[in-house]
Amino acid sequence: MTTRGKFITLEGGEGAGKSTLLAGLRAHLLARGVELVQTREPGGTPLGEAIRAIVLDPALHGMSGESELLLMFASRAQLVRECIEPALAEGKWVLCDRFADASYAYQGGGRGMPVERIAMLERWATDGLAPDLTLLLDLPVATGRARAAGRGEADRIEVEADAFFERVRAAYRARAAAEPARFRVIDASRSPAQVLQAAIDATGHLFGAVA
Amino acid sequence: MTTRGKFITLEGGEGAGKSTLLAGLRAHLLARGVELVQTREPGGTPLGEAIRAIVLDPALHGMSGESELLLMFASRAQLVRECIEPALAEGKWVLCDRFADASYAYQGGGRGMPVERIAMLERWATDGLAPDLTLLLDLPVATGRARAAGRGEADRIEVEADAFFERVRAAYRARAAAEPARFRVIDASRSPAQVLQAAIDATGHLFGAVA
Repeated sequence: MTTRGKFITLEGGEGAGKSTLLAGLRAHLLARGVELVQTREPGGTPLGEAIRAIVLDPALHGMSGESELLLMFASRAQLVRECIEPALAEGKWVLCDRFADASYAYQGGGRGMPVERIAMLERWATDGLAPDLTLLLDLPVATGRARAAGRGEADRIEVEADAFFERVRAAYRARAAAEPARFRVIDASRSPAQVLQAAIDATGHLFGAVA
Repeated sequence: MTTRGKFITLEGGEGAGKSTLLAGLRAHLLARGVELVQTREPGGTPLGEAIRAIVLDPALHGMSGESELLLMFASRAQLVRECIEPALAEGKWVLCDRFADASYAYQGGGRGMPVERIAMLERWATDGLAPDLTLLLDLPVATGRARAAGRGEADRIEVEADAFFERVRAAYRARAAAEPARFRVIDASRSPAQVLQAAIDATGHLFGAVA
């Protein structure tokens, strides 16, 4: 019987260095012989990418918090069924740029959607699937926004005010504090090499079963 | 104080004659002096129309039932907040081509999504808003599909098998039976003129408060 793969998610605010870490962590896992599927949220499937285009479209600035929340979970439900679950079942590892924690942070913390509602949508959309490890790149909001500035036109979420991103950060940190076994909080103000090393250290215990 | 407007929804399967009835009913209501907003689901807002394009795209044939359900309610939440509620509050009447009953029929009856889940999403998305009158155009599936044939390329939902539309019809009729005060079931096999007359008769009591 195939050993089920591991599911790693990466979370964090704007300018935290997720893309850089994803590339480094991917290279590390491949070098260790892991069969890896890398994906992202919202997106990762043809449906999800179509939803992503809607969610980030600056022209849809009047989008209600309820609609945004439901769109995120519509993308997530598809990603779990079409991509993540089949890959894990085949023994592949999945590295996902954002997952359900992002909805607690952005739609819950940022937009004020009730946490019980998010939890119920999570049960429906993920069918109980949770990451084996979640890496949270934590960074003061001002630092992250300064890094992210000059990356081109801001999307519909990036244009939010600092107070929004402070709530996002606080919600992320609260999630991490509530589930210390799953989360590893990484100080993203350190150098890319240090951040990558912290992430690599955090993945070490996942190899136990296949070593 | 402005008298709140009336909210009328039109439901029914493929080929039931919704478009023809909408045009006739609209003309009747305008002739009676009603300030009318006509809209549709999924759609009716910039966000909703973007979601509609996704939901009906035949290329997205692998869409999960969960995702379809969440997309429908994402569109609905926006329509209620951006269009229907403001119009009703201003005293306008709203005539909507499909509303929440369609999710019970298509995603519930057709796709087998749990009715409790749909009911919870309805509460979140509509904030308790329900139609004052729902006209259900009822028609045997074979008759409706024969009428709808030759309308051009079928969308992602129209390509479903007859059994799907039989379940949709049964779910619609069950909804109508459970809420007889709100629903009026119209035999859509009759002539367009007879169907319109039945719809006009059904709206009569809505004028009581503004006569």
